[in-house]
Amino acid sequence: MSDELYTKKEAMLYSQRIAQLSKALWKAVEKDWQHWIKPYDLNINEHHILWISYHLQGASISDVAKFGVMHVSTAFNFSKKLEERGLLSFSKRDDDKRNTYVELTTEGKNLILELNANYHNTQHAVLNGSLALKDLYGRFPEFLDVMAVIRNIYGEDFIDIFERSFQNFRESFDRLEENQ
Amino acid sequence: MSDELYTKKEAMLYSQRIAQLSKALWKAVEKDWQHWIKPYDLNINEHHILWISYHLQGASISDVAKFGVMHVSTAFNFSKKLEERGLLSFSKRDDDKRNTYVELTTEGKNLILELNANYHNTQHAVLNGSLALKDLYGRFPEFLDVMAVIRNIYGEDFIDIFERSFQNFRESFDRLEENQ
Repeated sequence: MSDELYTKKEAMLYSQRIAQLSKALWKAVEKDWQHWIKPYDLNINEHHILWISYHLQGASISDVAKFGVMHVSTAFNFSKKLEERGLLSFSKRDDDKRNTYVELTTEGKNLILELNANYHNTQHAVLNGSLALKDLYGRFPEFLDVMAVIRNIYGEDFIDIFERSFQNFRESFDRLEENQ
Repeated sequence: MSDELYTKKEAMLYSQRIAQLSKALWKAVEKDWQHWIKPYDLNINEHHILWISYHLQGASISDVAKFGVMHVSTAFNFSKKLEERGLLSFSKRDDDKRNTYVELTTEGKNLILELNANYHNTQHAVLNGSLALKDLYGRFPEFLDVMAVIRNIYGEDFIDIFERSFQNFRESFDRLEENQ
């Protein structure tokens, strides 16, 4: 067997393996997500836009689209719907006239906080399915290989926004605790 | 901060982290998959049904649904369409009258082989994004933590079918090479 054929075969096996795994994982994540937000009359894209706007503390529509892995038109159209519901507001920035920015209204922020407070009231199969790993290793898995692949696909920008939003997420918990 | 609060916070951060990663990964996989099968007038579910039927060498509709992570009705309806196109045939088994089995026709098998032969003619962003890991570790990542989570969510059955289909996939390459 030639090296090239070997490589092509391995590449294809790998690629289809990750395809199956990623489909199975995403379908489980999607189901959990839908159950969680169902009482709030939001779809996943809408909630994702609110979540990103909350954690980036003012994001452009193109940031939302990039980080939410959706088309710019999808991000824009769902943002419009959220604006109509009074959860989001649009703005332009003096130093950046070309982009449209979105920010949560007070009502939008309260909704996100309420959703977070109710997080553990619905089943999360992915979380439950990860507890055995946490018991074994003392912490939740970090999926560093998945992160590395995503970094290569979506670029450093994506990872920066990712880390920034989780940094803020962590801090928002800390603020919540200080206020208790 | 109480232990319980700490655990809930960590659980939620973890859970939303995996949600974002899994969405980003799946969207990239989905795009690659769509580009690959586009010339063949198939959607992802249809191709997935053909792929599973090929590698399980005769699967029940419920196996297809389970392993393809789709509703039984989705698996059934798309299988019907594939049957109408002459790619798949339905059958009952004498020892199992309750389940409907699907099997690829010769035309269906040839289509799968043609698709595999053309695999490297389209871009695969996920594969390209994994090459740096392969260079670094000498092989493609195995995503063992993702596998462990999926095993806990979908059960041992799912992993068995997964491994069986990839075992067959590997062997089908070997047979192909022997015939060359």
